Amino acid sequence: MGIRVVRFKKENKEQWGVISGEDRILVLKGDYASLKDFLEEGIKEAKVLKDETNGEWILLNEVELLSPVTKPCRIVCQGANYTSHRTEAGLEAARPPFNMFFSKADSSLCGANSEIVRPEHVKLLDYEIELGLVIGKDISGPIDVTDDNLHQYVVGLVIVNDVSARDIQMSQGQWLKGKSYRTFGPTGPFLYLLDKDEVSKIHELELKLWVNNELRQSANTNQLLFKPAETLTEISEIMDLSKGDLILTGTTGGVALNLSSEIVGQVSNPAVPFQQKMDLLLESQLKHGKYLKDGDIIRCQIKSEDGIINLGEQINKVISNISIQV
Amino acid sequence: MGIRVVRFKKENKEQWGVISGEDRILVLKGDYASLKDFLEEGIKEAKVLKDETNGEWILLNEVELLSPVTKPCRIVCQGANYTSHRTEAGLEAARPPFNMFFSKADSSLCGANSEIVRPEHVKLLDYEIELGLVIGKDISGPIDVTDDNLHQYVVGLVIVNDVSARDIQMSQGQWLKGKSYRTFGPTGPFLYLLDKDEVSKIHELELKLWVNNELRQSANTNQLLFKPAETLTEISEIMDLSKGDLILTGTTGGVALNLSSEIVGQVSNPAVPFQQKMDLLLESQLKHGKYLKDGDIIRCQIKSEDGIINLGEQINKVISNISIQV
Repeated sequence: MGIRVVRFKKENKEQWGVISGEDRILVLKGDYASLKDFLEEGIKEAKVLKDETNGEWILLNEVELLSPVTKPCRIVCQGANYTSHRTEAGLEAARPPFNMFFSKADSSLCGANSEIVRPEHVKLLDYEIELGLVIGKDISGPIDVTDDNLHQYVVGLVIVNDVSARDIQMSQGQWLKGKSYRTFGPTGPFLYLLDKDEVSKIHELELKLWVNNELRQSANTNQLLFKPAETLTEISEIMDLSKGDLILTGTTGGVALNLSSEIVGQVSNPAVPFQQKMDLLLESQLKHGKYLKDGDIIRCQIKSEDGIINLGEQINKVISNISIQV
Repeated sequence: MGIRVVRFKKENKEQWGVISGEDRILVLKGDYASLKDFLEEGIKEAKVLKDETNGEWILLNEVELLSPVTKPCRIVCQGANYTSHRTEAGLEAARPPFNMFFSKADSSLCGANSEIVRPEHVKLLDYEIELGLVIGKDISGPIDVTDDNLHQYVVGLVIVNDVSARDIQMSQGQWLKGKSYRTFGPTGPFLYLLDKDEVSKIHELELKLWVNNELRQSANTNQLLFKPAETLTEISEIMDLSKGDLILTGTTGGVALNLSSEIVGQVSNPAVPFQQKMDLLLESQLKHGKYLKDGDIIRCQIKSEDGIINLGEQINKVISNISIQV
């Protein structure tokens, strides 16, 4: 079984730890300023610590959880990578002829229990549970990644909620802005460091997301259209990645967004006036009431059916940025 | 007058220097591993050095120029930010109701005289001269940037050629991939460190790009639709930036891309089959012969009309990745 790593803050001090049992954090002594530092220097300590019985520990619920993925880092996202999400997004169901990539600002990263701050002007706030792959080895040129060598490049897994402002994302065409607001990327709680012999389980993880205890998203990574190995192979042909970077594998069906192909065609067409797009989006989307409202509680989990791989649970409350302005 | 900084390699050693006169590099003694390091530790040395007359110097044409912007860094790009480019891209000419942002991988950065490597499968390789703004101060929350305080956030200027694979970019919808291939971002030669009293000249820089000595792009930054100050204000409301990050302000008319609004509508519509989009793109674009071919030489310059601000000249040759495979 792999190691569940957490990054947390207690008494204003940022630390790293290893989860023991259900609710204990065994505290690492090393002071790792970034995920890269932890991956280079801390894994060894974590491996030893997880079997120790008399080290320092604290209760998981007594700390503030931080994103185990630290900035600066690159976040490369796959778009529309599950059939069930493709159809609700107004796209053809089948695997498309290309693997769609976009990026998300690293300052969107926040902890697994952090508040998600809705910018006041955002009216279509949506959730997206995704499996995140944490890069464990620098990539600086084309490599042939297969399921047999995937463990060399993917060191661990995290839950990421790819929170999205659909009104911004869909009306402006390029997705960076609508995906990047601060707190739009709850990550963790656990960085699950994969055992080499567990890598195949990456294809059988169950994703579940609830809003106010209503199950909205439920899927299995065996439904991913472009798999992690082929995705990393293609990314390596385009750009460099570094230890500690994050790949988001795309979300599954059940988000609030629900567009017909006719509306997507209108909204994607540069010739349609901007206000008309916004009206179309708001009119078609607000009526079903699934978009996030201030006060909503989002809960997500990713784990293998046998429970051996467990990335923990995120619980995030939505608030408005007005409520935090002084 | 500001300082023209270069980063270069000679005898396998990466160094920083200051340009003196037309063709001399005064070599900095400090060993700065990144642009951030240079901005924090090296500017002082550069300011002293530029007035020295008996320090070490080498000829500019005896070194390999490197991008003065170093990775890792964030590259945030503005899209369709000049009227002349909007019309050739099939978009409405007027300033749109939103400032379009996307990103480009930092591994696309290369030197001002580096070869631009066309991936074998790319058939519509295009150029885009852009003014690059180098961030000089960390930004971690909303700030109100104006022309009066812009110098606090923008420490310098660079030429960037935002090389683009139009077949990838336009057919796949999200622009990250088509803009990010390695060598798709020649940057420099000079990082022009702005004097505080020169900041207003940011609005009167002339951009020129030639392909094989034919002038293709010629514009002035006074034509920018979304200006640097308002752009930084908006970005600060969304995401963090760090010292050494890069903002690309968008390109002007004259690129090879030339699309009617009808074709853009087709190509942007998710309901149109991928192969049909690709056929439309290739058919409409290849006939005018403006796309880059292997062996083409691109030359670009950015400077103020009075010559006081001069970001230098890029000269890049296009080659195919086949020619560098062993």
